[in-house]
Amino acid sequence: MTSSVWAVIMAGGIGARFWPLSRLERPKQFLSVFSAEPLLAETVHRLGGQLDAAHILVVTNALHVERTRELLPELPAENVIGEPVGRNTAACIALSAKLIRDREPDSRVIVLPADHFVGDAEEFLCTLERALLACQGGHLVTLGIAPDRPETGYGYIQHGEEEICAGVHPVRTFAEKPNLATALRFLRSGDFLWNSGIFVWENDALIAALEVWLPETWEAVAALSSAPGQPDFGAQLAACYAGLRPISIDVGVMEPAARVAGKVRVIRASFPWNDVGTWAEVHRMLDGDGEGNTTQGEALFVNSRNCHVQADRRTVVLLGMRDTIVVDTPDALLVCPLSQDQEIRQVIQRLKEEGLHELL
Amino acid sequence: MTSSVWAVIMAGGIGARFWPLSRLERPKQFLSVFSAEPLLAETVHRLGGQLDAAHILVVTNALHVERTRELLPELPAENVIGEPVGRNTAACIALSAKLIRDREPDSRVIVLPADHFVGDAEEFLCTLERALLACQGGHLVTLGIAPDRPETGYGYIQHGEEEICAGVHPVRTFAEKPNLATALRFLRSGDFLWNSGIFVWENDALIAALEVWLPETWEAVAALSSAPGQPDFGAQLAACYAGLRPISIDVGVMEPAARVAGKVRVIRASFPWNDVGTWAEVHRMLDGDGEGNTTQGEALFVNSRNCHVQADRRTVVLLGMRDTIVVDTPDALLVCPLSQDQEIRQVIQRLKEEGLHELL
Repeated sequence: MTSSVWAVIMAGGIGARFWPLSRLERPKQFLSVFSAEPLLAETVHRLGGQLDAAHILVVTNALHVERTRELLPELPAENVIGEPVGRNTAACIALSAKLIRDREPDSRVIVLPADHFVGDAEEFLCTLERALLACQGGHLVTLGIAPDRPETGYGYIQHGEEEICAGVHPVRTFAEKPNLATALRFLRSGDFLWNSGIFVWENDALIAALEVWLPETWEAVAALSSAPGQPDFGAQLAACYAGLRPISIDVGVMEPAARVAGKVRVIRASFPWNDVGTWAEVHRMLDGDGEGNTTQGEALFVNSRNCHVQADRRTVVLLGMRDTIVVDTPDALLVCPLSQDQEIRQVIQRLKEEGLHELL
Repeated sequence: MTSSVWAVIMAGGIGARFWPLSRLERPKQFLSVFSAEPLLAETVHRLGGQLDAAHILVVTNALHVERTRELLPELPAENVIGEPVGRNTAACIALSAKLIRDREPDSRVIVLPADHFVGDAEEFLCTLERALLACQGGHLVTLGIAPDRPETGYGYIQHGEEEICAGVHPVRTFAEKPNLATALRFLRSGDFLWNSGIFVWENDALIAALEVWLPETWEAVAALSSAPGQPDFGAQLAACYAGLRPISIDVGVMEPAARVAGKVRVIRASFPWNDVGTWAEVHRMLDGDGEGNTTQGEALFVNSRNCHVQADRRTVVLLGMRDTIVVDTPDALLVCPLSQDQEIRQVIQRLKEEGLHELL
């Protein structure tokens, strides 16, 4: 009998680059970008009936626990965990590992970002099945997406030549977001894949790796004596998180585990995937008109080319514009060049400086 | 005893270039562009207490008669005349001349566009006083604005060398909107002035000129037997206007009267003036921030330069934009380059094609 499967949905992001549609109170995972369903709900429902709802944990900011429970009423309330502060992915994953171990010692775990796009749910589930097999024996498995362009917005994973089984390779290196020249080299090499941030492992294997590579993080979460739903859990977690070092699971565990211990495998995935990081990504993924303009909501493009409009309740008209994003909401409107969608953080900063906190 | 003075406010325009703030139901003269008061009300009130309200006629489209009366309750209702269709300025002025003659045969008349900006009301009134003197003896007087830039959006008036009295010259030619090279030549010449569309004349002199240069137009309006406020005036006017040729007073009367009869004088005016034809004009006239950005309403400019925002009730954020206009209204939003503000008519056309009549 194989061990049971859990899923951890990482929903702690703020998604500032989707401002003004995303706000502190309504981060990206709550936005309905490609369908009527918010990204977080899509992520949970994409798992289909494969997992018992009691085996799905969602880790989000404490601010968003209630909203998450409302969005996902099928989940037990104690499966939605509120982090008192964000401490990057290693903290979130270590906490989840601790909670899963407490409930079911012998488990395999799928870790998923809450707010990505997956274009082929069937292929996605099939890849997860393969990853659940590939992780057996203590391997940390990450899903790598075969790149179709020299994307500079993603991290990359270089795999080794050995093919352990179909599409499963040892990981050689993790690479940060490259510049364009490097991204072109990665694309041509054939052995670099996009780092999807999706992981599959045996819970015990992850805990063992945490004990080696992030022992302070693991010990801090392992020391929690209270469980979600118990009265003092929030206070314990706040004290625990206050002392945690913010670090990503990639940097804190996966890289050293790959480099030193040879414990990491990557599975080459071929489902359409996008981290939906910016409006430019949304623009790229939508079908454009003859001039490459895309829209969600009512828009009219006159002599305009390669623009994206995110309309609210009004008609947005672009006349003679090129490569421009317009995002309309009831209380704030953003206009910026497609190429500057990474700079939206500057807007957030300025809103704070100007005291426009109600727009954050 | 000098003759009494009347004013005719020409308010028949549609102001499509101010879309989406201007609409069929709310043309430019009803917009409050530079103060809390709509341009039309500013135009009337700028005349101050100099004129009896009973001596001010406003000629507008029949669609806008009620709104105009509400805006200007001090005017007798019959002084707001609704044109059944627009037939350009000659028709409007001929009709006004007929109505004024019926009420007071010996009058002088000031003709004013309803929707222009005048920066110095005192200098403006002083110039009108001088024009009222200069028109005596049957001269048609037009106000010419000393240009301070090679504007290509205005018509020009070339005056003769002779100075009849201080700042009053015979008109040599009327020139259409020039290209930039010609506008530069006009600016350097010193004898070209902007055609403000403001005229002053004795009513009888204008009627005499109409009889010579636009006899069909004059005969058609002179044949009206009914007066505003009488039950059949609307029907008579509709029948009359249906047969009128649309032509401007400049082309139909002023040009030939200047060229052939030498009857036209221009008075050099020095008050700040602008026809407020486009959003680019509004942008030019407002005080910008350090980067040349202007706004009416709440806007935040981040790394942006030389932009204009016309905000409604939301905060408009421009990030990394250059030379761009954003006009926000409750049901429609326009984004376009400053240089394309003349092309807004294309938007109107597309809205018609797409059946979006509620936005016209």
